Amino acid sequence: MPEHITLYTAKICPFAHRVELALAEAKVGYKRCEIDLANKPQWYAPQVNPASKVPAIAYGGPQVPPEQPSPDSIKLAESLILVEFIADLYPESNLLPKDPVQRAKTRFFIDAVSTKFLPAYMGPLARGESFDSFWAALDTLQALLPADKTFAVGDEYTAADIAIAPFLARMEVWLTNDIGAYKAGEGTKAAQDFFKGQRFARFVKYFNAIKARDSFPATFDADYMKEKYTARFASLREQVQAAAVAAAA
Amino acid sequence: MPEHITLYTAKICPFAHRVELALAEAKVGYKRCEIDLANKPQWYAPQVNPASKVPAIAYGGPQVPPEQPSPDSIKLAESLILVEFIADLYPESNLLPKDPVQRAKTRFFIDAVSTKFLPAYMGPLARGESFDSFWAALDTLQALLPADKTFAVGDEYTAADIAIAPFLARMEVWLTNDIGAYKAGEGTKAAQDFFKGQRFARFVKYFNAIKARDSFPATFDADYMKEKYTARFASLREQVQAAAVAAAA
Repeated sequence: MPEHITLYTAKICPFAHRVELALAEAKVGYKRCEIDLANKPQWYAPQVNPASKVPAIAYGGPQVPPEQPSPDSIKLAESLILVEFIADLYPESNLLPKDPVQRAKTRFFIDAVSTKFLPAYMGPLARGESFDSFWAALDTLQALLPADKTFAVGDEYTAADIAIAPFLARMEVWLTNDIGAYKAGEGTKAAQDFFKGQRFARFVKYFNAIKARDSFPATFDADYMKEKYTARFASLREQVQAAAVAAAA
Repeated sequence: MPEHITLYTAKICPFAHRVELALAEAKVGYKRCEIDLANKPQWYAPQVNPASKVPAIAYGGPQVPPEQPSPDSIKLAESLILVEFIADLYPESNLLPKDPVQRAKTRFFIDAVSTKFLPAYMGPLARGESFDSFWAALDTLQALLPADKTFAVGDEYTAADIAIAPFLARMEVWLTNDIGAYKAGEGTKAAQDFFKGQRFARFVKYFNAIKARDSFPATFDADYMKEKYTARFASLREQVQAAAVAAAA
């Protein structure tokens, strides 16, 4: 019987969102502790995660308020490790398939998310780069999707889908609301290309299947994200675009 | 009952070495196919691994010569994924502990090898950089070792030990033989610091425990590695050191 879980998380953070999805899918009750990433509490790094990042889990030990973590609970970190931890604690969740080949395919998709998709994802959003590498990375992931199945490695929702879902959720917000370091208008156009074009029809169908899970609305607040991303990226766009003009002059 | 395995590998490659260690530890019979990385066979990328890298596994399907892979076998790649695949196929190998917390700790150590140790490892060897970052990365890993246990996450040998073993094995060869892009003599001195000093005494004890496993000599040929690394890094040292002189002039 698994012990109780305290999750240190932040609504804004896509990595922490992965673990919230895993817990929702496995139908696990847990204590949720929101960490203000712009103003982290002093106890957080020394008592929960020395890397001072979310997500982190305190597992087991005495029942204590999350703000007063016990030295007797086990502290674990790194989003993908926590997702596999939830999958291992609750094997009936099927977040990791039982078949070793399917498990390997799940991990292969996750690896592609980490090494191919995430670096490209930050290009337009945070650095104002062209969407070319971003679309190429989505092509790579789309090519991994099985043609006649619902999710990344089959008809079951797995850790592979959890690995990418938070980034697709945020992508929809920043594209459709034209938020990012890229030039004004490029996001709206990219949203049109992605959601309405033929090139990513398979991928959009996949994304819709992810959004149709109960776990998605239970863990994602698009209005909150729009407000926070707008505040965060408006000045970044000004800086990046001003630097681009200066470099071209 | 697991199906038969063909491993595409190369003696020189530390990533491929991980999978050979996993197979040796799990006592799995398999067909071994050495791939010449400098001259890869034309069939390899299209028929085995589109990324054209080793290691890769062909799993199941008809019994065929490795050089004539069947489209009916399952092709899997990426060293850490293959190690977990072997662990999943042969749970009695204990390469992944049964306890979810221990599994998470195993993956946390592996993540530290990938994100902290490997980038630093290439610094002195391939770019002639100072050993400072390299020692700092080893400090980080050493701090993760449990004080009173034999291996990375306990007294059992696991995937965590497999993740780092091939790099430590090669490190001993290139340090003690003064092979690398760094200045002549720096490797010999670093070998003395590492193997004889107090700073890494805990780590050296750990490395000795890894080397004492039957799987180590069965999968690693130090003389072969010395010969290949000498050929590969002698000209690299000349280039890097000439460039350093030119930059300083």
